[in-house]
Amino acid sequence: MNPVDIAEPLRSRWSPSVFDAEHELSAAEVTRLLEAAQWAPSSGNRQPWRYVVATRGSAAHRVLVPHLSRGNSGWVPRASVVFLSVAVIGQDGTELSDLLVPLHDVGQASAHLTLQARAMGLHAHQFGGFDHHAVAAGLGVPADARLVAGIAVGVRGNPAEVPERDAEREHRVRSRRPLAETAYDEQWGYAWPGLVPSGPETA
Amino acid sequence: MNPVDIAEPLRSRWSPSVFDAEHELSAAEVTRLLEAAQWAPSSGNRQPWRYVVATRGSAAHRVLVPHLSRGNSGWVPRASVVFLSVAVIGQDGTELSDLLVPLHDVGQASAHLTLQARAMGLHAHQFGGFDHHAVAAGLGVPADARLVAGIAVGVRGNPAEVPERDAEREHRVRSRRPLAETAYDEQWGYAWPGLVPSGPETA
Repeated sequence: MNPVDIAEPLRSRWSPSVFDAEHELSAAEVTRLLEAAQWAPSSGNRQPWRYVVATRGSAAHRVLVPHLSRGNSGWVPRASVVFLSVAVIGQDGTELSDLLVPLHDVGQASAHLTLQARAMGLHAHQFGGFDHHAVAAGLGVPADARLVAGIAVGVRGNPAEVPERDAEREHRVRSRRPLAETAYDEQWGYAWPGLVPSGPETA
Repeated sequence: MNPVDIAEPLRSRWSPSVFDAEHELSAAEVTRLLEAAQWAPSSGNRQPWRYVVATRGSAAHRVLVPHLSRGNSGWVPRASVVFLSVAVIGQDGTELSDLLVPLHDVGQASAHLTLQARAMGLHAHQFGGFDHHAVAAGLGVPADARLVAGIAVGVRGNPAEVPERDAEREHRVRSRRPLAETAYDEQWGYAWPGLVPSGPETA
């Protein structure tokens, strides 16, 4: 549980690194996750997001796995499905600056997919550590689009069955920058003052 | 309601253009919305997002309003609060490509804020149509950060009290690209086949 009084499924969302390597998602469940992303808002309703579904053991999964970073190579392959997010830049995407709004909106759709997973009793862990160029080439992502990130989705597994470093990732204390350094009141640098008690009460 | 069977607060989220110009959010409510953003996931937990809170009638609000696009100038000022999202690029942000991950993660945090609003019975409508340079200068956003978007939050008002064009915006049919063109099975361009009936059943 996140230590603030926010609503479900936001409140209990976190990013496990121990997935059950036997669990499978049904096609209907995968579709439901994609529909959550589909109905995210976007600038001008352009919906710049695309997702390639890489079910564990599939051809797309075999494209991804060898290109995972060392840190991701243990835990990502155990997840039931990896969704690979792609930002479509469009005809006018000749400048990097044309990517900024699509990237923002892909992040938004992926947040919706991730939260839908939590609402379905699943967990999602997003990751960027893989060889983007090699995986994009392997999946046939065209030149007017950009492979962004992976979202590993599944159910939690038994920590005793995974490498120690993956099990240990889950024991890291989850933390965030104080809200006073994230939110400003009217002007950059002026801490938002409306703080209410947050997190476990101290006696 | 979105015409798919996704979880609340995703299911009933939409972007109204008619806000109640008298409604006010408490400081505790604003804080709760910011906390939802604060606990979003991000690459390396870098939390590249910042928010400037512009309550209706505040100094920040007076900075924003004259720089709204014509299409946004009617409805945005009526919302209770506008959150202005900012992406912090950091020390290594000398290349535009360094902006892509922060932009993605700001989109994610703003999705969390928007969904938290819905869970609290509020509505949020994100917008990008304003003079970013002028507003960033007015708010004191530093050079290593980039003003991204606005999120107007409040409760719905009476359509009879707003300009016709704003009331009419709400009557547009909400639509999304078919899922088969958004999600691919294993390889770019191959429609995800696992579709289940979605939307109102037809007889």
